[in-house]
Amino acid sequence: MFFASDNAGPAHPRVMAALVAANQGYAMGYGADPIMDQVRAQLRAMFEAPDAAIYLVINGTSANSLLLATMAQPWQTIFCSDCAHIHEDECNAPEFYTQAKLTLVPATHGKITPDALHAKILAEENRGVHGPQRGPLSITQVTEKGTIYTLDDIRALTRVAREYGLKTHLDGARFANALTALDCAPADMTWRAGIDTVSFGGTKNGAMGVEACIIFDPDLAWEFELRRKRGGHLLSKHRYLSAQMQAYLADDLWLDMARAANARCAQLAKGMRDHKTAQFLFEPQANIIFFQMPRHDHKRMLDGGAVYYVMNGDPDAGDPDEMLTGRLVTDWSMTKDSIDQFLDLLHG
Amino acid sequence: MFFASDNAGPAHPRVMAALVAANQGYAMGYGADPIMDQVRAQLRAMFEAPDAAIYLVINGTSANSLLLATMAQPWQTIFCSDCAHIHEDECNAPEFYTQAKLTLVPATHGKITPDALHAKILAEENRGVHGPQRGPLSITQVTEKGTIYTLDDIRALTRVAREYGLKTHLDGARFANALTALDCAPADMTWRAGIDTVSFGGTKNGAMGVEACIIFDPDLAWEFELRRKRGGHLLSKHRYLSAQMQAYLADDLWLDMARAANARCAQLAKGMRDHKTAQFLFEPQANIIFFQMPRHDHKRMLDGGAVYYVMNGDPDAGDPDEMLTGRLVTDWSMTKDSIDQFLDLLHG
Amino acid sequence: MFFASDNAGPAHPRVMAALVAANQGYAMGYGADPIMDQVRAQLRAMFEAPDAAIYLVINGTSANSLLLATMAQPWQTIFCSDCAHIHEDECNAPEFYTQAKLTLVPATHGKITPDALHAKILAEENRGVHGPQRGPLSITQVTEKGTIYTLDDIRALTRVAREYGLKTHLDGARFANALTALDCAPADMTWRAGIDTVSFGGTKNGAMGVEACIIFDPDLAWEFELRRKRGGHLLSKHRYLSAQMQAYLADDLWLDMARAANARCAQLAKGMRDHKTAQFLFEPQANIIFFQMPRHDHKRMLDGGAVYYVMNGDPDAGDPDEMLTGRLVTDWSMTKDSIDQFLDLLHG
Amino acid sequence: MFFASDNAGPAHPRVMAALVAANQGYAMGYGADPIMDQVRAQLRAMFEAPDAAIYLVINGTSANSLLLATMAQPWQTIFCSDCAHIHEDECNAPEFYTQAKLTLVPATHGKITPDALHAKILAEENRGVHGPQRGPLSITQVTEKGTIYTLDDIRALTRVAREYGLKTHLDGARFANALTALDCAPADMTWRAGIDTVSFGGTKNGAMGVEACIIFDPDLAWEFELRRKRGGHLLSKHRYLSAQMQAYLADDLWLDMARAANARCAQLAKGMRDHKTAQFLFEPQANIIFFQMPRHDHKRMLDGGAVYYVMNGDPDAGDPDEMLTGRLVTDWSMTKDSIDQFLDLLHG
Repeated sequence: MFFASDNAGPAHPRVMAALVAANQGYAMGYGADPIMDQVRAQLRAMFEAPDAAIYLVINGTSANSLLLATMAQPWQTIFCSDCAHIHEDECNAPEFYTQAKLTLVPATHGKITPDALHAKILAEENRGVHGPQRGPLSITQVTEKGTIYTLDDIRALTRVAREYGLKTHLDGARFANALTALDCAPADMTWRAGIDTVSFGGTKNGAMGVEACIIFDPDLAWEFELRRKRGGHLLSKHRYLSAQMQAYLADDLWLDMARAANARCAQLAKGMRDHKTAQFLFEPQANIIFFQMPRHDHKRMLDGGAVYYVMNGDPDAGDPDEMLTGRLVTDWSMTKDSIDQFLDLLHG
Repeated sequence: MFFASDNAGPAHPRVMAALVAANQGYAMGYGADPIMDQVRAQLRAMFEAPDAAIYLVINGTSANSLLLATMAQPWQTIFCSDCAHIHEDECNAPEFYTQAKLTLVPATHGKITPDALHAKILAEENRGVHGPQRGPLSITQVTEKGTIYTLDDIRALTRVAREYGLKTHLDGARFANALTALDCAPADMTWRAGIDTVSFGGTKNGAMGVEACIIFDPDLAWEFELRRKRGGHLLSKHRYLSAQMQAYLADDLWLDMARAANARCAQLAKGMRDHKTAQFLFEPQANIIFFQMPRHDHKRMLDGGAVYYVMNGDPDAGDPDEMLTGRLVTDWSMTKDSIDQFLDLLHG
Repeated sequence: MFFASDNAGPAHPRVMAALVAANQGYAMGYGADPIMDQVRAQLRAMFEAPDAAIYLVINGTSANSLLLATMAQPWQTIFCSDCAHIHEDECNAPEFYTQAKLTLVPATHGKITPDALHAKILAEENRGVHGPQRGPLSITQVTEKGTIYTLDDIRALTRVAREYGLKTHLDGARFANALTALDCAPADMTWRAGIDTVSFGGTKNGAMGVEACIIFDPDLAWEFELRRKRGGHLLSKHRYLSAQMQAYLADDLWLDMARAANARCAQLAKGMRDHKTAQFLFEPQANIIFFQMPRHDHKRMLDGGAVYYVMNGDPDAGDPDEMLTGRLVTDWSMTKDSIDQFLDLLHG
Repeated sequence: MFFASDNAGPAHPRVMAALVAANQGYAMGYGADPIMDQVRAQLRAMFEAPDAAIYLVINGTSANSLLLATMAQPWQTIFCSDCAHIHEDECNAPEFYTQAKLTLVPATHGKITPDALHAKILAEENRGVHGPQRGPLSITQVTEKGTIYTLDDIRALTRVAREYGLKTHLDGARFANALTALDCAPADMTWRAGIDTVSFGGTKNGAMGVEACIIFDPDLAWEFELRRKRGGHLLSKHRYLSAQMQAYLADDLWLDMARAANARCAQLAKGMRDHKTAQFLFEPQANIIFFQMPRHDHKRMLDGGAVYYVMNGDPDAGDPDEMLTGRLVTDWSMTKDSIDQFLDLLHG
């Protein structure tokens, strides 16, 4: 009953097998390994973007920071939601890499609306050299709240950004969970909807630790490479990143794992829906549930062996009837039984 | 006959097996996994440093940059050799992380002498707020030229540094190769010789990609943790770093691999010693050989299938008798036969 | 009728005379001039802070940025109001110097309330190494909206900050205007109220271009000096900063100028109070007025020769009855007649 | 007898008069003052560069750092002499602003030779993404050693730089002293010789504190403006920078002052030439003399009231016959008598 995070689960055995298989003899380092050639070709084909620059890094923080640094200038401000991972959970890494600042757009259920974005863009206007200059937009899909931008949502946001000459980055730490939920092509959710760069996550969805950075404008490629090296994010034994990504993509493993995670989440949501005190903050759409429940119920769950984060208070101390927010995250490795076990405990 | 670099070889099968073994069920992320507890205890015991702060990162560039950033201030200069990896091969990563500058001390056979260090320290004096302030010393062991500082060498250098209140960092990308060559304890080569922080390398010696950052003064621990996160170098699925390091240390695997690499190098050196044209630039001491040979001989070797770097000229174009420098690096995975094959080609 | 900014007016003739007087013969540079010794002693006496470190720089942006950089770490967030000059008008200079980020506390009439501060401090809690760490508080006195924190207000804010171990910076670009309005001692408005560092403004109040940086904890002095030099803000011919500050402080010139500016503002406010359409956004307290008025009235004023900023719309285009906000700033050099002239035009 | 530095002398009375004259009524800030329009036009005409972007800052460190930051990328290295002011005397300001590193080219008598530059450029080659990338060249004219690059020298250096696609910055803190010594046009010594940007010094040559940043490629203008603001180097009361520069240029005051400084230096050099122990390190060419003399002679001069720096030892302690290097700098305000007084003391 481990629902704390999708980065706490194991990697898929096929990913591990690929690592072992790649561990034969000598291989050129730093991205010049032959497996990377295949990965590059495969991602380009998959994204219908034959010219895209493709790079692998170890985690989402470095993917986001390096992509944004390649897109933003130090005197700009990056527009993102007020619950964005790049704002809340990366200890100033985006600021370190970009030297820019972040402008927080108030999010509704984790999502930025075009109007809210527009208002913040306008608020940064008219101060000439004095104010920060408008920089790129960064959105997260699946959002940090477990909601999903529709293709129309994304198009509407990038349209606002483009009106002001701004590029858009997609933090796709849970790209696969969104894609399978929307049932669309990678290109639909990215460049065809106006996205310029993508952090294409693997780590939260069954890889050991790998994310692809996808840059649709190849003119930015060399700068990205230099920034990656300067950040200490270019691996000498790069083949072990390549092998993970290769296995992750092969035979749609990545989509199967995301579907499994989403299905477990749906199973969980269905089972919680008729609970007497638990209430969803908003409708779960991928593999994350935010819900409210009295403290004493949270305490009972945690004491009973469920593992998840209670976001806004100590489950052990305080008014037992106070409503606290819990977050449940499912991953590919979760069994139907473990969900049932959780639900039994909840309803018991 | 692959002698290009020790980071091009495979990881040891026991390292890979440890990864697979660690891939079971859920584990807390970000360094809170139980394997890391064991690694921490083991390295502290091994270094006879019960209070040392111990962290794992993916590669040497991040280890060096993060440790130096924790030791140096942005208005300081870091003393290092003029062939230091942090100067030549990290694309300004140390400058990015520290915001400091580097003062290059002329190296003799890759090694800084106390006199040369002293002269550079003195040269940074007497300008008050105007000049860069003196910052830490960083030395590399095994040096980038394949030579080794004796314990006396290290003690003499750190003594000079301490006279001026400066701390010392050891870039130990090839720590194991040096340690086995010197046949001493880790503490002897580090804190007992005046070293304050160590990049303890695994990647070049049979790991997949892991280095330990060892900080003997635990007061710096929290700052290091924040800098690591801010640099994007804290892994969510940290257990896969821990597992590598655990297997690397277990049953002295790391020392066995270093001994094997050094033995292959000695075998190689012995076989080259009586060659008619090849000359060592300096006596090989660990697992790296720098040697001079006429261009036509290099060309013959490379055409014959040997893989290594020719440092100062195109082996294919130019005066066939011009002497060019080659670099040969051995690793744990190399067979005696592959060395013999190279020597046969050389002498043939 | 120039009400655009208090940094557009002339310097006081006594400041200019001091510059000319200082321009005799040779003087040691970089702050070692004898006039600086007097300035330092005078500010220490005035602030009843015999150990305070005192430095001069050319403007408020550098004063704020350098002080905050000396107080904050790159992995922290600095708490400030959402209309703070350091956020809105310094083109990321604070981020450049501190490498930290800013957390915007919603302001009421330009002022942060203890509750709003507390809420934002709490919101940065509980994410360990993942979130930005809590850094110093920065407040502006007079605020960017022309309002003033009472001594109780300041004490209440610094008390909240101190509860969490946070230091407080005072952006006193209009320090004198606030001090004369509150009629208190400099120490009352600063260290006795819990302030740790002060940007003590001269430029907006009759100097040519000089601000004092006052650091009550002298342990931070050397770091500040290095940061100032590294930022290019240490003047070789420093005596011309010293001379300005000396004349500014002599015979309470600085207080007289602030009183004059405030008095002109009061005269202006009184004359506007009974206007049929102009309405204050909040009660003016120092030398700045924010007021609303229909577009056609703004247009009439601007066409008639009044110079001031209309903040939220084009005065020349749009619905003539739409209410737009204007900002009026008075300075020491303004005559009563020019105020009357403005009021005549307004009421005419 | 003050020969410590040309930044310790007074500003010219006409500069001060211009400041006072500019101190009338209101003026738009931040470079939008009408005097700046004239300065811009005058410098463009003077440099025969009608499109050049022209900005004023307070000192040489900020001029150099901001110009280099506009020319260099964070992953590059800037080529400069090993005695360059940007390396030795700016406490890492160039590194702070550019985020790049410096490659020190060994200087001969303060000057970089084309061969030495070429060797260092070649040494940075061939490491792909691993090494720092080649960035701009920065040369100092007059050099830090008081020598002067001929027009041929400059052309030869920029030719080498351009071969590798590198731009060149001229640190002209003593631009006027060099120009009058060479007796050429500003364009000859800059863009016609291949220079891309110039720090055009005023402070060391009779201004109070102003340098012009001249950028021949106007495409870099907006970035420079943003960097200047972000560095805290945009003055609100900008007219006082403009007024200084206007007076400095008017009626060739700047050239007259430089000629006077150089003439005093020539007088000094002539008088020292036949001294029994004092020896020039190299022939003085502008307003700086480096000379060797036994310690006891230095001590006698300093005790007698001469003020100058002894560079490499304590004049008061040590072997009285040891040769120590002294530096003498003349400025516009020095009288013939003061030189004679110094020479009398020397020969007495």
